[in-house]
Amino acid sequence: MKALITQHTPVTNEVLNTIAHLPTKNLPKIVEEGFFKKLTDKDFMRIAVLLAQKGYDEGGCPIGGVIISNETRQILGKGHNTLVQENHPYNHGETSAIRDAGRYDFSRTTIFTTLSPCDVCATLIYMRQFKRVVVGDVTNAAGNEEMLRQKGVQVDILEDHEGIALYGKYRAEKPDQDMEDWKGLAAVRQRF
Amino acid sequence: MKALITQHTPVTNEVLNTIAHLPTKNLPKIVEEGFFKKLTDKDFMRIAVLLAQKGYDEGGCPIGGVIISNETRQILGKGHNTLVQENHPYNHGETSAIRDAGRYDFSRTTIFTTLSPCDVCATLIYMRQFKRVVVGDVTNAAGNEEMLRQKGVQVDILEDHEGIALYGKYRAEKPDQDMEDWKGLAAVRQRF
Repeated sequence: MKALITQHTPVTNEVLNTIAHLPTKNLPKIVEEGFFKKLTDKDFMRIAVLLAQKGYDEGGCPIGGVIISNETRQILGKGHNTLVQENHPYNHGETSAIRDAGRYDFSRTTIFTTLSPCDVCATLIYMRQFKRVVVGDVTNAAGNEEMLRQKGVQVDILEDHEGIALYGKYRAEKPDQDMEDWKGLAAVRQRF
Repeated sequence: MKALITQHTPVTNEVLNTIAHLPTKNLPKIVEEGFFKKLTDKDFMRIAVLLAQKGYDEGGCPIGGVIISNETRQILGKGHNTLVQENHPYNHGETSAIRDAGRYDFSRTTIFTTLSPCDVCATLIYMRQFKRVVVGDVTNAAGNEEMLRQKGVQVDILEDHEGIALYGKYRAEKPDQDMEDWKGLAAVRQRF
């Protein structure tokens, strides 16, 4: 059967959102390689933001991540924060995408994350030797970009304004959940 | 129905191994609270080593972790490395046990790990504000103990000689898998 999304399919939010919702292992049946080859960094960040939106719609923390091959530009892994959905204390955007990719040589890849990585995710990014990380939001959080550069990871900032607005809205709506995600339940309890 | 393992059950390797193999959520049906209350730190480290042995028997990396409540001494989470079994690039002994525990205030807990924590696990331990970590092997690996103490985590060394021997044997048998687990596939490829 022919793929629904071909190299000639226009790059729209609806198409990128379909890719965000498809399991990574199913992508080759639905999307031609040629389509991914024409996607820009901004487009991959859009997919990450659409994953963040998916997480928000599920009641979770709106943070998404996408990993691509630097050579072929195909998606190798993607995911979003599942603190709430999986009762998972550290499945962030980045850890989720890395779990999805599995055992891979990440020195040949780029990871797109909608929000500046926390200490755990930043540590995992250098420990698994990612070549490059693209950060979609250094407005709502920041801090590990310089450490990552010192560890030899190329760090690029490519802010997505819809992603920034979504995270800001979520943080105002659920400040406790936001704090738990960053600092743990102990920090939330200490606040009272 | 009465629990199989009661406060009067002697603490043997066979009983601890049964506890290692039971899903954490099923423990209250099989083990009386009183049994856990009489377990020493050394006994909990034994359970972690038995989880490491389970991982080794499955063809994986022999590293286990157990989390207990400091107040009640009940097990809240446990697990072992599943690099091979789950195709999971960072499900180490500690990350596995923390995933199993779920959203919990870890500032009231102790985590037992059979092997000195890697950078990612050590970062997760301080970021989730664990009160205490007990390390079962600083012979085959070490390094983050001092950083953890500086972050306010109590670190105790309680070496388990069977666990140390098991890890040494595994490392000699599968040096590539051992390196991938610590440094990623890129490091393995760079060696050749």
